[in-house]
Amino acid sequence: MASTLVTCIGLLSTQAEMGEVHDAALVIDGDRIAWVGRSGSAPPTDGRVDVQGRAVLPGFVDSHAHLVFAGDRAGEFAARMSGSAYSAGGIRSTVAATRSASDEALRANVSRLVHELIRSGSTTFEIKSGYGLTTQDEERSLRIAAEFTPETTYLGAHVVPPEYADNAAGYVDLVTGEMLEACAPHARWVDVFCDRGAFDADQARAILSAGIGAGLAPRVHANQLQHGPGVQVAVEVGAASADHCTHLDDRDVAALADSSTVATLLPGAEFSTRSPYPDARRLIDAGVTVALATDCNPGSSYTTSMPFCIAVAVREMRMTPAEAIRAATRGGAAALRREDIGRIEVGGRADLVVLDAPDPVHLAYRPGVDLIHQVWRSGALARKADHREP
Amino acid sequence: MASTLVTCIGLLSTQAEMGEVHDAALVIDGDRIAWVGRSGSAPPTDGRVDVQGRAVLPGFVDSHAHLVFAGDRAGEFAARMSGSAYSAGGIRSTVAATRSASDEALRANVSRLVHELIRSGSTTFEIKSGYGLTTQDEERSLRIAAEFTPETTYLGAHVVPPEYADNAAGYVDLVTGEMLEACAPHARWVDVFCDRGAFDADQARAILSAGIGAGLAPRVHANQLQHGPGVQVAVEVGAASADHCTHLDDRDVAALADSSTVATLLPGAEFSTRSPYPDARRLIDAGVTVALATDCNPGSSYTTSMPFCIAVAVREMRMTPAEAIRAATRGGAAALRREDIGRIEVGGRADLVVLDAPDPVHLAYRPGVDLIHQVWRSGALARKADHREP
Repeated sequence: MASTLVTCIGLLSTQAEMGEVHDAALVIDGDRIAWVGRSGSAPPTDGRVDVQGRAVLPGFVDSHAHLVFAGDRAGEFAARMSGSAYSAGGIRSTVAATRSASDEALRANVSRLVHELIRSGSTTFEIKSGYGLTTQDEERSLRIAAEFTPETTYLGAHVVPPEYADNAAGYVDLVTGEMLEACAPHARWVDVFCDRGAFDADQARAILSAGIGAGLAPRVHANQLQHGPGVQVAVEVGAASADHCTHLDDRDVAALADSSTVATLLPGAEFSTRSPYPDARRLIDAGVTVALATDCNPGSSYTTSMPFCIAVAVREMRMTPAEAIRAATRGGAAALRREDIGRIEVGGRADLVVLDAPDPVHLAYRPGVDLIHQVWRSGALARKADHREP
Repeated sequence: MASTLVTCIGLLSTQAEMGEVHDAALVIDGDRIAWVGRSGSAPPTDGRVDVQGRAVLPGFVDSHAHLVFAGDRAGEFAARMSGSAYSAGGIRSTVAATRSASDEALRANVSRLVHELIRSGSTTFEIKSGYGLTTQDEERSLRIAAEFTPETTYLGAHVVPPEYADNAAGYVDLVTGEMLEACAPHARWVDVFCDRGAFDADQARAILSAGIGAGLAPRVHANQLQHGPGVQVAVEVGAASADHCTHLDDRDVAALADSSTVATLLPGAEFSTRSPYPDARRLIDAGVTVALATDCNPGSSYTTSMPFCIAVAVREMRMTPAEAIRAATRGGAAALRREDIGRIEVGGRADLVVLDAPDPVHLAYRPGVDLIHQVWRSGALARKADHREP
């Protein structure tokens, strides 16, 4: 390959750096990157691919996606666009559809969405449970998720299901007990929706602690719907990521800046719920590591497109194109505590996006346009360019 | 075909109606629709295509696109996203690149963008000149445009080119004289950018009148950058469309409502210039016919995606999904004064989009996702579904 490489490495003293190498080449050996540099000094290799001046960047890392569900909520969306507000309660309608779906139906839906994700350039993606909310349905959600990704997240604590409406404490006991035991073998992460209409700080602490005790690493849905304790709880337990971060005060920003917790911003959710966007500028200027992810789910953000999230982040969250691209690659990798992805580096995974554009800025400059020319995943071509020929 | 058909016909007393027919079928004969109705009563035909419950809607009509140009302005975009304001002056850098490009380079660029348009569901598109601004360069722009569409628009009056910087009157003479004479044989429409930094009301009237005299039908770039006389001039000359309509007063809205001039809204431009959006709600509530179009151009809106424009129109301009879909189909047809497109009707052109979704609301509900399963143009398959298979 020879073109402009966006390595997402380099000095990286600032999140504004993409680490661009012009007239560049890289060598893939198996599933890894074996060499990166100027094309003039590339070692001889078999099977050269000339990308003809197209920009090459790391595959996107979508660190927040809810893909195991059945049904859709197009009607709820249309009503919201006519003025209804978004609330966490809508999750329950997807829970009902998910519980009554067969394993095959759930698997087919995940497969369809994973196909969309990869086609739009995401080479790593996290998948959460959270629409089962019984031991059996959470366990099967994670079992199915694990067929598609190692980045599986146990989100039994998405909302309190209807059958526990008057007994939230009983549901927390289930989530931290029998359900956790059944789910932990299929999960890497534990997550909790700590927000209005979902779980409070004490419940969140109990759920995360139990998950950590079962060998899972914590991440938190925090401060989406209103200001609350989510970010503080996330930092307190050493979560890899606090996700949403829409409503923050100075204490939250300072706590994130002093921690290794990434702020994962999900502009698709604000777009599709017509909510105010998180202030990425404030977080970046304070030194917080920022990630972008899709939040793909049928209620509040039914997109699989990281390019769309990049374009909206630049338009609405005052990120520069370079910051948004870093947040969608290296930022996502940090949110998953992964060192082998989200950058183009010798020894790293050969996960690459080849753009039908000379400059990665086109991801924000050409919103809504399918600019993905090729996707390479672990050194293999996962999306070919042939669909683009007239 | 059998599924949910969005006909964009029916009572249509309101722009909120999509004219949906469930469990529907249609018959194509040559390039026309020969029959539409419930699948149970469809006449027998050869070559049945079962779209398996997918939604079918009229092909999008993109009534405003600037596709004949060379180069891009990604650097200007990135600077704007870091705080610079958009001005009409940037057009001049594209003029310089366009003038020095070969016919082949310009044709290849139009072809690439037309391919994107069709892949994203647009079956009719307008193409303007306006980056040549000499008699020879405007003439060749329109000659190339006419190879791709009958909806060609002479926009010699895009901005005053640098060589006429001190002689705007001389440039208006050229645009209404020799340049018009050379361009009229290749154009259906005449357009003028009536705004700050471009042309004033008297100049706009002179340019539109001359175009009308040469057999062209008028349309106007109006009220994009600030409130001005553009909409009034458009209504006064009986323009098919006043495009942008971002800054309107009550008189403008009333004039549009009392006329046959369509208000064509271009949310891609506001998205990519970080400008306030036009108030579609106010226009629709006043009874103005609204169209949506991409405004595809390398300066202020480098998107070819009508689905993206629909999603942004719903999010930002308070259109319902049904209104946005109508504006992107039947609205665009009205802006081009076409009766044969933008709806699914017996005798109309067989221009159809088959969505990978059961409901057209998904166009707004799933932003950034490539939902186009098939595109039919004049009865022929213009985009196949095979790219979607894993």
